[in-house]
Amino acid sequence: MIYPDTLQKLINFYKKLPGIGDKSAERMALATIEISKTDIDDFANALQTAKEKLNKCKICGHLTENDICNICSNENRNKNLICVIEDYKSVFSFEKVGNFNGVYHVLNGLISPMESIGPEDINISSLVKRVESLENPELILALKSSIEGETTTLYIKKIFENKKVTISRLSYGIPMGAEIDYLDIITLDKALEDRKKISE
Amino acid sequence: MIYPDTLQKLINFYKKLPGIGDKSAERMALATIEISKTDIDDFANALQTAKEKLNKCKICGHLTENDICNICSNENRNKNLICVIEDYKSVFSFEKVGNFNGVYHVLNGLISPMESIGPEDINISSLVKRVESLENPELILALKSSIEGETTTLYIKKIFENKKVTISRLSYGIPMGAEIDYLDIITLDKALEDRKKISE
Repeated sequence: MIYPDTLQKLINFYKKLPGIGDKSAERMALATIEISKTDIDDFANALQTAKEKLNKCKICGHLTENDICNICSNENRNKNLICVIEDYKSVFSFEKVGNFNGVYHVLNGLISPMESIGPEDINISSLVKRVESLENPELILALKSSIEGETTTLYIKKIFENKKVTISRLSYGIPMGAEIDYLDIITLDKALEDRKKISE
Repeated sequence: MIYPDTLQKLINFYKKLPGIGDKSAERMALATIEISKTDIDDFANALQTAKEKLNKCKICGHLTENDICNICSNENRNKNLICVIEDYKSVFSFEKVGNFNGVYHVLNGLISPMESIGPEDINISSLVKRVESLENPELILALKSSIEGETTTLYIKKIFENKKVTISRLSYGIPMGAEIDYLDIITLDKALEDRKKISE
């Protein structure tokens, strides 16, 4: 046994985290024991309360410590504009952008026939109920451009066919600042197809 | 506030660890809340006991949960052969190699006139006492090849001059598997100087 027991336990935990191998876990564990007792106690507390308190918002499925998340309970947000996303990580991404004033709906997955994930396995029925209760709702489907993302987008589009719902999806195209010669042909093809007129 | 409070606390803690930026800290915090309650509780406990229990071995200065570390208290290790190292991280490195059967002495720093760290600021006086109590001791100075490492090596060599102590240092040379054309000239120069005769 190379490490003292408690140090080995810290290493084992860090190795469970994404992208952390043996070497990083050791480095992190050794750094951990240099951190002040107050910070360690705070962290140990946060770990346990996170596990107890964090749950899904009853309206949108986003991560929250309460019944309703702070986005759904914010009176200044437009409840008729719903951005539909795969998981709560995307909520954080959009909130960092800070320009979106609507609310979210977290599907918690995508339809994937390959992995036998059907529409009933993800958070779609609650989306339908939610939309039905609104006047002139608008949905923005912000799902990734994969087979699963496209399938889910098409499925949701179909559900709301002939209903008074405006539906859009994120635009595809060249990422800002990207070198055109390094782009994959599918992205370039999409960017060409979805080109935007800039002359009068 | 983009993140729920407890999640933000987890992120803040992870950012204190070496090499962890905003993005990695978020990813790690989100992964943390997916880990089982048992593992989280174990980790929270290990964090707090690590802070309480881990201290320095009274003989060698290595990290231990007891008064004397498991290397110093191991009867099968050769107490007359002491490997002198900068910090306890090096102990773990040598122990992973697994071929060293002596014991260690952790200096907990190197002499550095630039940073006003003198011999009295690092763990040298205890080394002298330790060596004086031994019969035919041998010291291996395993310090890094920097100005501070060289200074400390020379200083320790001088202390034990005219005393019955065998002193050696790690060999310098080409790292195993390294491409010779990519090596820095100082390493190459050392490797040439310290060349080893292989003919009879």
